[in-house]
Amino acid sequence: MAIPNAFYAQSGGVTATINASAAGVLETARRHKDRIRRVYAGRNGIIGALTEDLIDTSRESAAALAGLTRTPGGAFGSCRYKLKTPEQNPLQYARLIDVFRAHDIQYFFYNGGNDSADTCLKVSQLSAKMGYPLTCVHVPKTVDNDLVGTDNCPGFGSVAKYVATSMREAAYDVESMAKTSTKVFVMEVMGRHAGWITAAVGLAADEANDLPLLLLFPERPFDEAPFLAAVAGKIASHGYCCVGVSEGLLNAEGKFISELGLRDAFGHAQLGGAGETIAKLIREKLGHKYHQALPDYLQRAARHLASNTDLMQSYAVGKAAVEYALKGLNGVMPAIIRTADRPYRWKIEPVPLERIANHEKMLPKNFITADGFGITARARAYLQPLTMGEAPLRFRNGLPEFVRLKNRAVPKKLQPFTI
Amino acid sequence: MAIPNAFYAQSGGVTATINASAAGVLETARRHKDRIRRVYAGRNGIIGALTEDLIDTSRESAAALAGLTRTPGGAFGSCRYKLKTPEQNPLQYARLIDVFRAHDIQYFFYNGGNDSADTCLKVSQLSAKMGYPLTCVHVPKTVDNDLVGTDNCPGFGSVAKYVATSMREAAYDVESMAKTSTKVFVMEVMGRHAGWITAAVGLAADEANDLPLLLLFPERPFDEAPFLAAVAGKIASHGYCCVGVSEGLLNAEGKFISELGLRDAFGHAQLGGAGETIAKLIREKLGHKYHQALPDYLQRAARHLASNTDLMQSYAVGKAAVEYALKGLNGVMPAIIRTADRPYRWKIEPVPLERIANHEKMLPKNFITADGFGITARARAYLQPLTMGEAPLRFRNGLPEFVRLKNRAVPKKLQPFTI
Repeated sequence: MAIPNAFYAQSGGVTATINASAAGVLETARRHKDRIRRVYAGRNGIIGALTEDLIDTSRESAAALAGLTRTPGGAFGSCRYKLKTPEQNPLQYARLIDVFRAHDIQYFFYNGGNDSADTCLKVSQLSAKMGYPLTCVHVPKTVDNDLVGTDNCPGFGSVAKYVATSMREAAYDVESMAKTSTKVFVMEVMGRHAGWITAAVGLAADEANDLPLLLLFPERPFDEAPFLAAVAGKIASHGYCCVGVSEGLLNAEGKFISELGLRDAFGHAQLGGAGETIAKLIREKLGHKYHQALPDYLQRAARHLASNTDLMQSYAVGKAAVEYALKGLNGVMPAIIRTADRPYRWKIEPVPLERIANHEKMLPKNFITADGFGITARARAYLQPLTMGEAPLRFRNGLPEFVRLKNRAVPKKLQPFTI
Repeated sequence: MAIPNAFYAQSGGVTATINASAAGVLETARRHKDRIRRVYAGRNGIIGALTEDLIDTSRESAAALAGLTRTPGGAFGSCRYKLKTPEQNPLQYARLIDVFRAHDIQYFFYNGGNDSADTCLKVSQLSAKMGYPLTCVHVPKTVDNDLVGTDNCPGFGSVAKYVATSMREAAYDVESMAKTSTKVFVMEVMGRHAGWITAAVGLAADEANDLPLLLLFPERPFDEAPFLAAVAGKIASHGYCCVGVSEGLLNAEGKFISELGLRDAFGHAQLGGAGETIAKLIREKLGHKYHQALPDYLQRAARHLASNTDLMQSYAVGKAAVEYALKGLNGVMPAIIRTADRPYRWKIEPVPLERIANHEKMLPKNFITADGFGITARARAYLQPLTMGEAPLRFRNGLPEFVRLKNRAVPKKLQPFTI
């Protein structure tokens, strides 16, 4: 009997460490060549499977695979493309199975967040229903940290380390300027629905770093008066104030602050992000000079400041995914289980996808301080270990050196398919 | 005869490495206790001298001084405060001399950019005129890299490394998303008058990193049609496009793009920075989804990604300043002289402040490619060495550990002075 192949794809927004998960999958599969002949990667995620645009990862050197752990972005391309339900679009699922059958693919590794966990589950169910032998394992990844069933999500720890470091560094800068210039610094961070990244900004301040820091969580509707009073209080006590704002900050009516259409002095709508809106509000109401930063993709691409804990976990879930599949576990996800806070200990365990798909893990209420502007000791105990350890890069000519794969296409065997 | 004291102050926008210059001044002075009794730092720059708010740096431990090389911001506080000319406000200068005389300060070390070089020169001339023995040395610093007389400015190399690394990392991210999502990434960088930092973004692309990168320099008036054609060309060839935009980008009439008041679909003025304006223009005219980043202070505070070359030079100019003063050199600045490009070699030499004050070093025309959107080989040869070497930090609990000085005040001897 011929040794079957495996399929791997990256899905949704990429992270600083998603390629480490790819390395975990690919290197582990290579150690089991008696069970997995080759791993084919989807070019641009699941679209590569639908269009039979497969990448033959066996053409990549061992050094290139190792280099994946040092390279941000998605090395095979990702996509924002959600499969319809099998009822809505049965042809899509039939096509996937056709492609898998044509290329003798019997393992399906899908590296993504909530939506892709759901897709992975559906593919698993459909293939069983259609009598095609396919073992499906979801590999978790999302900077949003909102997957249930796992203590944390690969990709998040590195963003947490980046936003906390950036806020701490900027605070030292602003403190020096505050006497005669900038008194308010606002940084907007990702996380439209859950405040995990916003909470991580809170790590910038600690016993050794008494920073006047306020956080605006998407979980807490923005209330202007107490917020401005808190800003004024920080400026009174410290001479300046730093604010970490979630891009998903809402007002009392549940509308995004960034879409509020505040009007400027000329009656024009003030568009722009939540951070900019908050910064302008402070200037308008309190009269302070501000600076505002919007790290945007920099925060999730910053491999140079990745958390080594995150990097190891990202690799570990990729490795475990292959091991689970080889054990015959189907429709599962390797989850990160925390076994101790201090010193931090973790392990990987399989969790059924039914428990994960279509759920969202929100920031616990007891992670936010009573005033709504800070994080509790409980939040720190959870967040801090995820940022631990550095994972330095190789630099060449002053800049980080990343790998670029060959990404050679597997010859097509089927007719084109329009997605 | 009593051993005199020295005065040190930080001026203007701070950098990731200005505290390394402080360490160079303070540690070198401590090695010459027979000539300099104590170094008093101005709290919040020259304002500390005018208000007699002096910090006794002799109270800081050797470990704390060493820690300055690892700490961003200005450890004694900086200020944006330009002294008037001696003709406009002779009282200010008289007050400075009064304070210096009261505290037996005979050395003046002023750590800043163009304005402070001018101030340093004026203080030097005035003290001579008033018969007060004061040796004045300017310590260069500016992320803008626009001081003449020196090959480059301390602080710039680290920003260069940060913006180039950030753009490279983000490009790897965008490339993975471009098939179905973000096709354009825009990052706005500092440098309102000269395009040095914009040029440094260009280092992100090189032989090993074929990135579709366009730069918009403050030296080149923005011309919409060729720019949009270039964006479309990059998207055609690479599937995506990255743009580095100077905050000081001007239109053909010499107005800041960020103040152009472009109107959105509702006829409302689109305020916001140059980067945001360019990003929205691309979406409006070419229809592509964009992401935009505004690193703002993060770029100049990012000690975690400092260039070791920059760090060594920042320390070296502080050290040289004290050595020059002890040799009796007055009204000079330690300049960085490049003696070779490859391998890069540099040395420090004194330059008279008359040659520096009130001049601005612009980006040479031959650093920008003919199409106006890239950097030449000549620019690379200049920029690349400045980014070389890493200067890793100590991390504690996942985040960089910075020093905080005691900053104990020197008892006042004079009447208050209103600035």
